[in-house]
Amino acid sequence: MKLLRYGAPGHEKPGLLDSDGRIRDLSAHLHDIDGAALHPDSLARLADIDPATLPEVDAGTRLGPCVGNIGKMMCIGLNYSDHAAESNLPIPDHPILFMKANSAIVGPNDDVELPRDSKATDWEVELGVVIGTRAKYVTRDNALDHVAGYCIVNDVSERDFQTKLTGQWTKGKSCDTFGPTGPWVVTKDEVADPQALDLWLDVNGVRRQTGNTSKMIFDVATIIEHLSRLMTLHPGDVISTGTPPGVGMGIKPEPVYLKEGDVMELGITGLGTQRQRVVQG
Amino acid sequence: MKLLRYGAPGHEKPGLLDSDGRIRDLSAHLHDIDGAALHPDSLARLADIDPATLPEVDAGTRLGPCVGNIGKMMCIGLNYSDHAAESNLPIPDHPILFMKANSAIVGPNDDVELPRDSKATDWEVELGVVIGTRAKYVTRDNALDHVAGYCIVNDVSERDFQTKLTGQWTKGKSCDTFGPTGPWVVTKDEVADPQALDLWLDVNGVRRQTGNTSKMIFDVATIIEHLSRLMTLHPGDVISTGTPPGVGMGIKPEPVYLKEGDVMELGITGLGTQRQRVVQG
Repeated sequence: MKLLRYGAPGHEKPGLLDSDGRIRDLSAHLHDIDGAALHPDSLARLADIDPATLPEVDAGTRLGPCVGNIGKMMCIGLNYSDHAAESNLPIPDHPILFMKANSAIVGPNDDVELPRDSKATDWEVELGVVIGTRAKYVTRDNALDHVAGYCIVNDVSERDFQTKLTGQWTKGKSCDTFGPTGPWVVTKDEVADPQALDLWLDVNGVRRQTGNTSKMIFDVATIIEHLSRLMTLHPGDVISTGTPPGVGMGIKPEPVYLKEGDVMELGITGLGTQRQRVVQG
Repeated sequence: MKLLRYGAPGHEKPGLLDSDGRIRDLSAHLHDIDGAALHPDSLARLADIDPATLPEVDAGTRLGPCVGNIGKMMCIGLNYSDHAAESNLPIPDHPILFMKANSAIVGPNDDVELPRDSKATDWEVELGVVIGTRAKYVTRDNALDHVAGYCIVNDVSERDFQTKLTGQWTKGKSCDTFGPTGPWVVTKDEVADPQALDLWLDVNGVRRQTGNTSKMIFDVATIIEHLSRLMTLHPGDVISTGTPPGVGMGIKPEPVYLKEGDVMELGITGLGTQRQRVVQG
């Protein structure tokens, strides 16, 4: 299934994408695509619904973040070996973790706002992992049992805020609109191998990022094991698992950053695409 | 007013503390002490209620975190000049920001759990600032207009997770139960000067931390100004503003960390006290 949320910001309704690519309204069956909806029992109930029986929604409708009421957005840094090599940075011994403020999360095609003081806003296509059942002290072997599905996250990043404001990375990761999430949660039964997905990102039609999740230093199962030893992962939490090579910060001879009017388009095999216009905040 | 939440975890009801120190039930007037309840109009309505007309709640009732559905818990690091001196660390140019996962937030007197792999769990009494109205690009001069009130936060920290797991500080700050918050939100009309409050923390009856908010490097108004240039602060968000000297990590000749059975007691002038028992997680 491809589960989504549509409608005005803050008033999204639950829906799904049918096999013909049409949005169908799930409001009669549940009130949101949230932690409760992502439980395996709930997903099994939803899978029993014939999409043809659901009201069709106008194709031009805005999509919201594909998970509602996200508990925490955990982000892994420097998790692709080819990106680490490109950055001349050593391979970390453990997954690097930072948090993205929930207030940064927006729909997959919403505008991305440049903060007023920004000179270095950058893009990062990432595989998002959506938690379906509570995970605490789990091992790598059963870690994926706790996953409901996968989605795309654009981990938009202000590099000066991230590295020059004597803070932690979260300063450059938590600006409003810096977390486009969606277009849909693809349930894990439709993702044969989360470690064999192509990722790409274009800016103004120019291919900037090309990668594959096979290059992750810490795979999804290892990340879940590690995080679950630090804290409980709850249904509706999202883990963004790091970005492949090709961010603006790394472009030679000079970094290239986003400017007003730019358009980002990004996608991951089987998970759909996102498209954001860059506006001045 | 002193606003609080009481009852079983996840099922807290709203309440207030009356002038005789009794808990009164506010359920008939609002459904939670959350962002909406903390708006100035809501606070004005609550202030018009005669507490004597509200049902009294059993004094032994568990208190939950004093704010429900916290949007984000922003924490400021190294914000007391005497703590920076004690740590031999330079004064930062800007407030250091990290996030505490919402899943770490618990009631003021709930048990604090040592994570299984923990050898260095530490205490940090801090002034919590509760946001009442949306703040974006605000200046220092009007920053405090956006504050609903103040509370105590124990920013419990695992120092090895914080500094040795190649992550960001959030790894050592986000463990389950590492965010006791409360006992109540004291509305700002009852806090004459947030920069003149004594803070203290005892472990097993031994005074470990003693400080005053006058020693903050970045005062509350400056912190709000800075954060609001990075992201929107929403009603129901909480900022924990850093800790004074006396954390376990800084004790000479050897650091002293929490162990099973320890009891932390902490307080801030006018904001009440917290008490946590340390248990093995």
